[in-house]
Amino acid sequence: MKFIHTADWHLGKLVHGVYMTEEQREVLQQFVRLVEEETPDAVVIAGDLYDRSVPPTGAVELLNEMLFAINVELKTPIVAISGNHDSAERLSFGSSWFRHSQFYLKGKVDDQFSPVRINGVNFYCIPYAEPGTIRQLFGDNSIHTHQGAMKRLIGKLEEEMDCREPNIFVGHAFVLGGKTTDSERTLSVGGSGCVDAGLFAPFNYAALGHLHSPDAIKHEKVRYSGSLLKYSFSEANQRKSVSIVTVDEKGAVSIEERTLRPKRDMRVLEGTLEELLDPARIQAEATEDYLKITLLDRGAIIDPMGKLRQAYPNVLHLERKIDMIDQRQKESYGMKREEKKDDIDLFADFYSEMTTDDFTPEKRKLMERVIQEAQLEANQK
Amino acid sequence: MKFIHTADWHLGKLVHGVYMTEEQREVLQQFVRLVEEETPDAVVIAGDLYDRSVPPTGAVELLNEMLFAINVELKTPIVAISGNHDSAERLSFGSSWFRHSQFYLKGKVDDQFSPVRINGVNFYCIPYAEPGTIRQLFGDNSIHTHQGAMKRLIGKLEEEMDCREPNIFVGHAFVLGGKTTDSERTLSVGGSGCVDAGLFAPFNYAALGHLHSPDAIKHEKVRYSGSLLKYSFSEANQRKSVSIVTVDEKGAVSIEERTLRPKRDMRVLEGTLEELLDPARIQAEATEDYLKITLLDRGAIIDPMGKLRQAYPNVLHLERKIDMIDQRQKESYGMKREEKKDDIDLFADFYSEMTTDDFTPEKRKLMERVIQEAQLEANQK
Repeated sequence: MKFIHTADWHLGKLVHGVYMTEEQREVLQQFVRLVEEETPDAVVIAGDLYDRSVPPTGAVELLNEMLFAINVELKTPIVAISGNHDSAERLSFGSSWFRHSQFYLKGKVDDQFSPVRINGVNFYCIPYAEPGTIRQLFGDNSIHTHQGAMKRLIGKLEEEMDCREPNIFVGHAFVLGGKTTDSERTLSVGGSGCVDAGLFAPFNYAALGHLHSPDAIKHEKVRYSGSLLKYSFSEANQRKSVSIVTVDEKGAVSIEERTLRPKRDMRVLEGTLEELLDPARIQAEATEDYLKITLLDRGAIIDPMGKLRQAYPNVLHLERKIDMIDQRQKESYGMKREEKKDDIDLFADFYSEMTTDDFTPEKRKLMERVIQEAQLEANQK
Repeated sequence: MKFIHTADWHLGKLVHGVYMTEEQREVLQQFVRLVEEETPDAVVIAGDLYDRSVPPTGAVELLNEMLFAINVELKTPIVAISGNHDSAERLSFGSSWFRHSQFYLKGKVDDQFSPVRINGVNFYCIPYAEPGTIRQLFGDNSIHTHQGAMKRLIGKLEEEMDCREPNIFVGHAFVLGGKTTDSERTLSVGGSGCVDAGLFAPFNYAALGHLHSPDAIKHEKVRYSGSLLKYSFSEANQRKSVSIVTVDEKGAVSIEERTLRPKRDMRVLEGTLEELLDPARIQAEATEDYLKITLLDRGAIIDPMGKLRQAYPNVLHLERKIDMIDQRQKESYGMKREEKKDDIDLFADFYSEMTTDDFTPEKRKLMERVIQEAQLEANQK
């Protein structure tokens, strides 16, 4: 039995104000061709199909088209769950009809825990859920963390599980020790969002979504496929791939990776303006790529972005090394470097990720009040 | 062959700041029971399933649940199109899968004009579309009005139509002479949104959506089913029903109406505060109804809304006759009564319909600038 494990498509994603839809279409077309060549028994998508709960209509159309190609045209079963970026309710619309064509879409955790069975393999699907949702579902007030919620869920699955058969877990979670990047939204503000890889021991394989690199954790059986594309410059050096997972009759698992190639890569360049605008350099570069450029010049430069964009039209972010050094000096002189961001800074990051507006001091003040009130309310409970 | 014609469900509708979801659920459950009793060959929903392009998640879940009950549990084919309140793209998601269970959902006008055929009857489905969309689709620059667009579309359908068979048109449009209310959004700002009933002559029946009353036009074969519920106080005196349409082998059509009863009606009351708070009166009234109350008192009254809500908890709107007289006097003294609202007033109505915020002078100024710029741009084209 062979399935393809993918996750974190993030359709509708904006990176520095630019929609990634065209790249996503290109790479998903390659994915459909891969499904056609490999003829897997199933495609597993472990959450974050969309980048936000209300995705732009172009993303809705793209997802519809690609899933139709895989499921109906290529007659390949699909097992998919929602992630923390998806709206469980919106994504669920129509899922009862999709089952007819073996498209198993689980948007919300409910009281149905029976697995999807495909060619002798059981897929246990747990969409992303807040600990509070699981607490309510089981009426278990001891559940406060993602770890506690996942432990309870897997305990429930184990009750029914036949361990003589191959069992696959499909989930969207942050596994302890996983390496994060800038584009995975923090799961818990002020709490623990992590779960222990050991929880997945009852399964032959855990097909995970959430972290964007296939190397995010080192574990034989608990794996992230990685995201479809690079979605932030902190992912510039990550490999992006999908995993072809083969399960034999005894439940032993082997994995192969396949790389998808977007038309435009996402990369980081560094140099002086002169170096970067040298015609020989320009000729050697894939100039259409999405770029973050760090300029090494000292002193004033006039309109560096305008000049760079003539050669590199898709520069998304520009910074100067000199600023970064200043920043680090500031930090070493007295300001404590904060490893853990506080709630308002997390929100500020989120705001600038999701909109093209400035997070003005007025907005900051308003949000601080909201957070304060929410904390007060939480403490009173 | 028998089908039920309904339209304008407007799931997710806010009336004076109150979500109608509970009433909609109640009435849709009655609708499902009607389908169970009548066992029609199809249910036709002629647009505006949702009230807005991004409906609240409760509305998404309600629609999913009700369509599933009709289509899968009761095995009844569904023919549905999007209206001007729906997002064509969002509503279309999954429609290719739904066809397997004879749920024919057409969100967007495209180049597929073949009818849905159910028990010997052809259903030609034309979702709501802007004239510009149809102009582009046919590459016909002469199309500028809804009338022109509909004429072109029906001409296209006629090319393939076999007039020896019963042919039903399913559409969402404003038919000339139809009586409007406050809750149908204007189709064309500053242009003609109307189409002529005569256009539908090639069909045995036109199952329409958009106007909210089954009496909106007087025509044997071109009909509105009317909306599911009363959605504004200007509909307070309308009958609300669904139509059971029977088509015989020769294509002759007969119609019966069935009334659905919401738990809370929407009504208008008039009287002095004393009359309305008279215990005998209160006992005789269905006090849970959604009410618009017109107070006939003269002079100051302290907290009339607070007092009324103790007896009538769902007063949604309160006005005083005295204000209305003043208003009319003002109009007769020099101020011209505007039958046709200008763009900014239309937008102000829309804003207060869709949000619970005030349309402040600052917002008005901003919107005036936007409209001005849009008009400038349109004139330059």
